This record gives sequence, structure tokens and C-alpha cells, in this order.
Amino acid sequence: MSEPAQTLDGWYTLQDFRTMDWASWKRLSSDERQAAIHEFSQYLDKLNAVQDQKEGSHALYTIVGQKADFMLMILRPTLEELNELENEFNKLTIAEYTIPTYSYVSVVELSNYMAKESKEDPYQNPYVRGRLYPILPKTKHVCFYPMDKRRQGNDNWYMLSMEERKELMYSHGMIGRKYAGVIKQLICGSVGFDDFEWGVTLFSDEALQFKKIVYEMRFDEVSARYGEFGSFFVGNILEDNDLEKFLYIQ
Amino acid sequence: MSEPAQTLDGWYTLQDFRTMDWASWKRLSSDERQAAIHEFSQYLDKLNAVQDQKEGSHALYTIVGQKADFMLMILRPTLEELNELENEFNKLTIAEYTIPTYSYVSVVELSNYMAKESKEDPYQNPYVRGRLYPILPKTKHVCFYPMDKRRQGNDNWYMLSMEERKELMYSHGMIGRKYAGVIKQLICGSVGFDDFEWGVTLFSDEALQFKKIVYEMRFDEVSARYGEFGSFFVGNILEDNDLEKFLYIQ
Amino acid sequence: MSEPAQTLDGWYTLQDFRTMDWASWKRLSSDERQAAIHEFSQYLDKLNAVQDQKEGSHALYTIVGQKADFMLMILRPTLEELNELENEFNKLTIAEYTIPTYSYVSVVELSNYMAKESKEDPYQNPYVRGRLYPILPKTKHVCFYPMDKRRQGNDNWYMLSMEERKELMYSHGMIGRKYAGVIKQLICGSVGFDDFEWGVTLFSDEALQFKKIVYEMRFDEVSARYGEFGSFFVGNILEDNDLEKFLYIQ
Amino acid sequence: MSEPAQTLDGWYTLQDFRTMDWASWKRLSSDERQAAIHEFSQYLDKLNAVQDQKEGSHALYTIVGQKADFMLMILRPTLEELNELENEFNKLTIAEYTIPTYSYVSVVELSNYMAKESKEDPYQNPYVRGRLYPILPKTKHVCFYPMDKRRQGNDNWYMLSMEERKELMYSHGMIGRKYAGVIKQLICGSVGFDDFEWGVTLFSDEALQFKKIVYEMRFDEVSARYGEFGSFFVGNILEDNDLEKFLYIQ
Amino acid sequence: MSEPAQTLDGWYTLQDFRTMDWASWKRLSSDERQAAIHEFSQYLDKLNAVQDQKEGSHALYTIVGQKADFMLMILRPTLEELNELENEFNKLTIAEYTIPTYSYVSVVELSNYMAKESKEDPYQNPYVRGRLYPILPKTKHVCFYPMDKRRQGNDNWYMLSMEERKELMYSHGMIGRKYAGVIKQLICGSVGFDDFEWGVTLFSDEALQFKKIVYEMRFDEVSARYGEFGSFFVGNILEDNDLEKFLYIQ
Repeated sequence: MSEPAQTLDGWYTLQDFRTMDWASWKRLSSDERQAAIHEFSQYLDKLNAVQDQKEGSHALYTIVGQKADFMLMILRPTLEELNELENEFNKLTIAEYTIPTYSYVSVVELSNYMAKESKEDPYQNPYVRGRLYPILPKTKHVCFYPMDKRRQGNDNWYMLSMEERKELMYSHGMIGRKYAGVIKQLICGSVGFDDFEWGVTLFSDEALQFKKIVYEMRFDEVSARYGEFGSFFVGNILEDNDLEKFLYIQ
Repeated sequence: MSEPAQTLDGWYTLQDFRTMDWASWKRLSSDERQAAIHEFSQYLDKLNAVQDQKEGSHALYTIVGQKADFMLMILRPTLEELNELENEFNKLTIAEYTIPTYSYVSVVELSNYMAKESKEDPYQNPYVRGRLYPILPKTKHVCFYPMDKRRQGNDNWYMLSMEERKELMYSHGMIGRKYAGVIKQLICGSVGFDDFEWGVTLFSDEALQFKKIVYEMRFDEVSARYGEFGSFFVGNILEDNDLEKFLYIQ
Repeated sequence: MSEPAQTLDGWYTLQDFRTMDWASWKRLSSDERQAAIHEFSQYLDKLNAVQDQKEGSHALYTIVGQKADFMLMILRPTLEELNELENEFNKLTIAEYTIPTYSYVSVVELSNYMAKESKEDPYQNPYVRGRLYPILPKTKHVCFYPMDKRRQGNDNWYMLSMEERKELMYSHGMIGRKYAGVIKQLICGSVGFDDFEWGVTLFSDEALQFKKIVYEMRFDEVSARYGEFGSFFVGNILEDNDLEKFLYIQ
Repeated sequence: MSEPAQTLDGWYTLQDFRTMDWASWKRLSSDERQAAIHEFSQYLDKLNAVQDQKEGSHALYTIVGQKADFMLMILRPTLEELNELENEFNKLTIAEYTIPTYSYVSVVELSNYMAKESKEDPYQNPYVRGRLYPILPKTKHVCFYPMDKRRQGNDNWYMLSMEERKELMYSHGMIGRKYAGVIKQLICGSVGFDDFEWGVTLFSDEALQFKKIVYEMRFDEVSARYGEFGSFFVGNILEDNDLEKFLYIQ
Repeated sequence: MSEPAQTLDGWYTLQDFRTMDWASWKRLSSDERQAAIHEFSQYLDKLNAVQDQKEGSHALYTIVGQKADFMLMILRPTLEELNELENEFNKLTIAEYTIPTYSYVSVVELSNYMAKESKEDPYQNPYVRGRLYPILPKTKHVCFYPMDKRRQGNDNWYMLSMEERKELMYSHGMIGRKYAGVIKQLICGSVGFDDFEWGVTLFSDEALQFKKIVYEMRFDEVSARYGEFGSFFVGNILEDNDLEKFLYIQ
């Protein structure tokens, strides 16, 4: 048996994709819609307050195309908190006018493939903590996709030795670094939590950079031989003050 | 033909995943909701009474994300009893406000890969009986996933000899033992009953342990070369006295 | 080109899986439900009359789990008769309160892999006729699954010689014979009729035997290397006099 | 690059599979149903008139099992005509009581694998024209399935030489000829039009012949190594004068 | 790691496939339908005005078969503009009478496999600009399909060297050139944006040419060994003045 990578694990993450049921939403009176938006804003205010305390984080993005109209992404220290926030959202008026289309459950993860050996407790290291318990950036665009490492015939990631995987991950990481200035990556582990092994969320002010980094990585052996990808979602930030416009009906 | 493993088989198991139809649920009056919760509680009381008699067991957990809002898991000596309880649930008022999203039918199973040879009837052994007819633990979290052993090209579990499988399962079992204190595993066989060959249910007070054990096992040859996994579901315990809060509408 | 097996073909078979729309069913008045049950019983009486004449057969089983609430299985000499009975069922009141979830179209089939050479017309042989035009047994449990023979890389059933297939099927058949006393197998061919090549229906008074036979066969090369399986359905007999109880609403 | 087969292309083909929404259909008054049937019959009369002029053809068959209640198959010289007839059907009253379940878009195709070399324009040859612009036979049964040629590892049809493909297709064609008297085959190409590469429609007065021909062909290398099959649909002819009976509600 | 192809990237593209909910549409009064069509026309007029300014482009085509009734394809400089137009469409009255069936998000892409080396900035080259920011042609027919390059065993595009890929793409491109007069190809990259790596849209006045080019290319090694294809959609142009007829109800 090959030695597993060690991971550091941070906040639990729930990504919730929803489509608006526009026809029903339009049938509401303007006042009813206003009340629903107000209630939703109050919910977001509560999330903002927690984020201000650095006890969690969240982001709200539209999604382009029919896969969803928006994604609400929430990070919290426990699965119970995520579940409560999910149920609270489900009981909002706005939720009655949405159709769930996809969700993803995971936990922020750092792997030791690129870590330096050290005797200190990494969970006390401020840099590490900043990555495990991140305040999500407010970039203009987001890209999300779940992925697996392949286990197929001769292309079986989990049968490689630790050294082989380390070397492959190193060159993979080098591509990521080239994009350090323009893309922020959030890697979440989801083995045991959801249908793929990882959920990757990319943040950038230039949507085209998502295509560039994913395409470049695809030529890297880690992805070329060992990457299995789920659906890709791409969207634009939905700032609190744009919510009303997004939901506005003439 | 390779010699099949012998199995000991215990209670039949039905795992029933449901999403709440919150919009319809909210349209009920507070009294109607109260009556529906009361009726559901009575149903659970009956399950509790059977469990107290050790003639069956059950567990109720929420599920995080859109795959389901909750999972009701019931163990009984016969398929008829499971079916009756399923139909009884379907006729409850609460059921009208749920949408079935997944279910799994299986039977608690112990395989002989790790068993010692013995002349006694294992079904009379108190330890074995405790595992075949288990009272489910009330841990904070649950993780469920169905799985197959792969039959693909050179990675064909069912073409291995009994000795090879025994050896592979031994090292696999050793990983399980490392987690003995923090995770309780329930392995159910579902060949001939449902779409995968096994259903695995993990119980733990630390959700992160689900990720750790499944990830570590993935590097073990049994999973790396021979494991095929279905969907993963993770959730939090829904104690009887939390049911009202879970279903509460302002 | 390898020589195909010769088959003997009997009655056409339609397996129809349905879920009850319990919420709508409950909204009916007790009298309306009673009338719908009565009408359904009359439909079943007609099927019984045909069965008494040995001009067809049928069986009604509940299905455990969310895949269906019940399966109605009908055998008839022609596809037209099956289609008429299907349409007649669709026009019953009860059908309005069901949701179709799966169906399977096939024809009872005996293959010549294990047949002795003989000069007589097999269709005149009473034993063969009994198997091609069977009256379905009223066992407590049923198990249904569709399957294919694999055509994948080196595991291509249809590229094997007749001799190789015959030998493999012989040892496969030997497993079946071990269960002769406890399981009745009905093999139906569905090449050209439905999405898999065969539909297998097992009948037994002990549900656990389904798991035992399918698991044991999986280690046999025919299944291990060449079997591809669809969904598995398992259930309990729904006798005519239990129908009312099954559909009863307080 | 291997030389592609040349094809001769005839009428465009649309196969439209629909399930009746029996519950809604039954809620109509008898007069309303009668009017809807009458309107549908007039639509079919128009198709018949075109067919009488040999400017197109069509067929209406029921489908056995839950995949559909009926299939309407229409052949026309242009994609625009097919689209107009599809839209015209969609605007009929009967369409409101149907649920679309599958459709297939293709064009009648003859390939040159078995053609003799000739200098004449094949599109002027009456035999060829009869096959490219066929009046569909009114056989009792129909069987439809879409298929691909495999491109997988060593079983890659499109990497074979023209000679290899020609030889394989020749022996494949020989099987087809054995069934010449009992089965009429219509091969339609759908590369660029729909999700598989071909749509195969078989017509016969004996449904069992569909199983025999598809099963026998499966042992032929073309299918055994290179065939990938979609769903199979089988049904019975729905003559114009049986339409009323099919849609009749007591 | 193999060197990735360099790409030039133009306008973002959203392809939105919708089916009409004809039953609901018919229930509207003639005046209501007229108002909805008028509102939709005004929306299209705005798109036309942008296209006249060459600040974007769009096309409206019907789709044959049940996959969709029409496809609206919009190209714009930013993802935000696409998203706004999508939301604006969703809020139109006509949208309430449509059911989303598929969508695709991508960006117009030119790859450097066939490019000549040059020192000039390609984004300033008028020919290149014309291809990156195209005004869509008004051909009679359209064909759309998404595709991947395969990464499977020995057929792994991303493990080939730049030279191998360049050579393969060259012969692939030669086929495309043969169809230069009759088919206009629009290649869009969707890595990081949607579920496949590319979306291909073909425009032609002869629908049969779609079948011819895709079939011929399938024998080319790039497609034969390395192409993985999604669904194919084919349809007819829906000119602004045909919209009323398309949506007309007697």
C-alpha cells in the first residue's frame, strides 16, 4: 500500500446552486417580491456579520447558462452550522422561488505534497491558518468544478508511490504559481462527503484566466493521465447591492 | 471458478433519503404542521419501542447539501417488515411533504475473510450476533455510500483467488481497525437487492474522520484497484427532540 | 464469426414498475379509493381467468425501496396482447395515482447451451413447454435484474467460440442447479426488445437466497468477466387479498 | 487517415416517441376527446396524401412498455418540412395530452460497402431511389434502435482500413440477407444530426424476428467488437382505424 | 509535460436551448400571445442593434426533434453581458412558456496549431479579428455539438507532443478546408467554462453537409482516436419575420 498524503483540514464548505423559478417569482406582487428580497438580504447580513468576525465566510455568484442562476457558497467550522444555514435558507421566501440544481459538500484542504518538513504545529502557523480558514475574495468571476484522481488500468493515481505523486504534484503546483497574481485557488477535499474527491473553486477578475489555467494544466501529466472532471460552473459576482437588480421584475 | 467468500447475514436494512418540499410544507397552517410532526413522532416512537426490545433498530439523520434533507435508516429481521414500515411512512402526512431522492436495500453482512476457523455456530456467538443485529449508535454524524468490487480488464476482483482476496482484505481491515475508536462501520451486502454490491454506513462523532478513513483506504490496493464507489451522503443526527426544530416554520 | 446459441422462445413478458402517488391517492374519498381498488381487482380477475386457462400468466409484487411500490409482470403469447393489457391498465383509475418508474419487455427464452441433441420438436416436449409457457410461482419474494454479456477489450463474450461459451455456461448452470430447490429462475431474452440482452426474474420464499445465488455466480467466470448488470429490484408478493391493505388509507 | 465510406442520402427522418398523459386525457369530456382525435386524424390524412404522392412517408406504431405509448415516424425531402410537421403536431390538441420521451433525427442512407462499381448516377437508378425514398411498409411490428461504431482501444472501427471494413460489412450484410423475406431494414445516418451515428428501424410481421436478427448479428465481428447500441424500442402498428380504440376512454 | 497550444480568444458565447411549453402557450389569449411575441421581438431588435454596431452577434434557430424547439446563440465581449442578456430573456413573458433543455458557455477560439509564426500582434490583424469577433452567418441550417479530446489508455491527446498534435491537427484542418465553400465553422473553447472542452457550431445552407463533414472527420485520427462527442443538435434558421408563424396558434 502506498503512503497517503497527509492533509490539513479547515472550514467545511457547502456550495449550493439554484435556478430561479422566474414564472412563479413574476406572479408575486411587487411588495411580496420586495419582502422576499429584504428577508434574503437579512440572511446575507447575518452571514456578513459572521464573516466580519472571521468565524466563517461566504460568496454569492450568478452562474452563466442553464446549470443555475446563482451559487451561494458558505464556509463554517462545523457540518452542523452548514446544515443549519442550509435549512434556514430553505425556509426563506426566496427559496420557494428557486429550484435546487446542484450542491457540493467538502472541507478546505491543504495537502503535504509541497509542504516543507517542520516541527511546529501547522494549525498554529498564521499563513496556514489563513489558507484553511479563508475569507473568500470578492473577485468578479468564479469557476467551480469537482474532480477525481483516476484509477483506471495503467493510469491509477492511488497505485503510484508517494515519491511519484510528489514529483507530479510539484510540476502541477508550478503551473498554479504562474497564475498566482490573477487566480486564487481554493482546494476542498470531499472524499467521504460528496461524489468526487475534490472540489476546486477558482476566483479571478478575468474569466479568461480560468480557461487558460485549466487548459494548461490539462497537458500536465497529473491532469492528462490522472484527472477526471465533473461539471464546470462559471459566473459573475453578485454583490449585495446588485441582488435587487438581479431579482427585479418590471 | 474462484471460491466465494462465505457471509453471515443479519437484519435487512432500508435507507430512505428524502428532501422536504418546503414550499408546500410552509403553506400548511401551524396546526396542520404540528399534527403532521406529532404523527411522525408517533411513528418514530413505535420504531423506538421495537429497538428497545432489540427486535430491530433505526436512525434518523439530516443530510447536508441538496441530495436529501434527511435519511431514515431502518433494520428489521425480514423484508416484509421493512416494506410495511416503508408503506406506513409513505401514508403519513409528513410524507406528502417530502420528495424521495434515493434509497438503498441491503442486509447486514459479515464476511469470512478475517474470521477464525471455528466449529461453533457463529449465529449463536454473542459477539457475532451483536454485529449482525446491531443497535445503531447515536453518533453526531453519519456517512453512507454504496460500492462495488471492480471487474475491469486486469482489475477483476472476482477473478482473484480466495488467498489473494483474503490477503488484500486483511490489510484493508487493518486500516479499519486504526479507526476503531472513532468510527463504527456497518457493512451491508446488497448483491441481488440493489444496484451496488455493498452499502457502507459509517458512524462518528467527528465528521472529518469519514474523510480520513475513506481517503486512507483509497491508497490500499483493495480500493485503489478494485473499488467502485457510488454517491456519498453525509449528515448530522436528528434526535427526536430536534425534529420539531428542524421542521419548524416561523 | 462465432456460431450463435439457438434459443427456444415462449411467451412475451412485460414487467411494469410503478410508484404510488400517495399524496393524490389520499386526497380521494374513501369511496373513490374503494371503487378504484375494485376496478383494479376486476382487471386482476381477468388476468387470473386467462391464467387458469394457461393462456398466459402474471404476478404482482411490491418492491422495497424507492425504485417502485409494485411490479406487475404479465406473460402472453403475443406482443399485441401485452400492449393491450398495458393500455387497459393505463386507463384504470388506479393508474392515475401511479408514476411509471421502469419497465422491461422480453420473451421467455431457453438456450441450447445445455440442451441434449434430440430429433424431436422441442416445442412439443411437455417439459420444454412448461418452461416456455410457465405459470409463475407464488413465492414470497421476487428479484428482477436485466443483464448483458460484456463486449469489452479482452472480455468479449461474443468473440468466444461456441465451445468456450458452452463450457462456461455449463459451470454457470451448475450453480443454478444447487439452488434448484429454493429458487425458480425465469430467463427472458430481450435483444431487440429492450436495453439489455436478458431479463432475469428469480422467485423464492427466502429473500436471502437471491443474494447468495447472485453473489456466488459473480465469482463464476461467466459473470466475473462477462456479466454486465442493470438495476436490481427486490420485493414481496402482493396477493389479491392483500391489495386492499396495501392501498388502505386511514 | 482511412478512406471513409461513400453514402447515398435520401429522405430526412424524424422519429418522435410520446407517452400519453392518460390522467389528463381522461379528464376531458367525451366530446373534447372526440374532437382531438378527429383533429389528429386530419393531420394523419394530410400525411397520407403526401405519401400517396410519394413525396414522403410515415408510420404510426404503439411502443410496448413505459418508454413511450406511440412513435410517429416521418420522412421528408428537407429538414424544414420535418420541422414544420413537428411543430404542427405540437400545436394539435392531442399533443397537449402527450409527454415527449425520445426523438431521433437522421437521413435515409445507403453505404457503398456492398455497392458494385458503376458509372451511372445512382440517384437515377430506380432500385436505389426506391430505397432512398421508401414508402414505409405496414408491417405488424417495428423495432428501432440507434447505434455507433466503437472507437475504443484496439476496437476502433474508424482506424480500420477500407478493405477491412468492407470485408466485415460484407459478412454482416449476409446475415441481413438471410432475413430478407421477413424483415425490412431501414438504415438512417445521423452523424451530425443526433447523438448516435445511425438509427436502425426494422419492420416485420413477426416480432420474434427482431430478436433473432439482432442476436445473430451480435456474434458477427462488426457488432461483437465494433457495435455500441442505444435504447431499443419495440411496438405494434397503429392503423388509422385503430387510433380511436387506442385513445378510447369508457 | 507537453507544451499546450496557444489560443487567441474572442467573444464569449452562450447557446441557450429551449422547448416551448405549447400547452400553456395555447392557453393564453391571442392578444396575450401577440404581446409576448412583440416583447420578444423587441428583445431581438436590441440584439440586432448591437450586431449592427459589431459589438456582438447572435442567431436564432429552430431545433429539429425533442431536444429543443429553438436555440438562441449570443456572442458578447464579456461574461457579464451574456449573463445580463440571459437574465433579461428569463424575465420576458415568452420565457414563462419555455422549458430550458440545454445550454453551453464558451469563448470563440483560434488555436495556433495551424498559425504561421509572426511578430505582429494577432489581435490587431483584421482577418484574425474577423474570426474572433464574428458576425454569425444567416445560413439556412445550424449544427452544434460539444466535444473533448480523449485521455484514455493509449489514446491520450494531452500526452502527445506538440509536434504530434500539430501534425494530426493539420490533416484535420485539411478536411475542414474542403468544406470551406459550404460550411462555416465556429470553434469555441470551453475548458473551465462548461462540461466539454470545445463547442463546435457549423453553419450551412445544406444540412446534409453537416453529416458529410462530421462523418469524414471521424475517419481522421484526431477524431477516430481522440474525439469524444456530446449531443448533436441540428436546426433551421428562424428569421425575425418567421417568429410569428413559428409561435402562431390558430
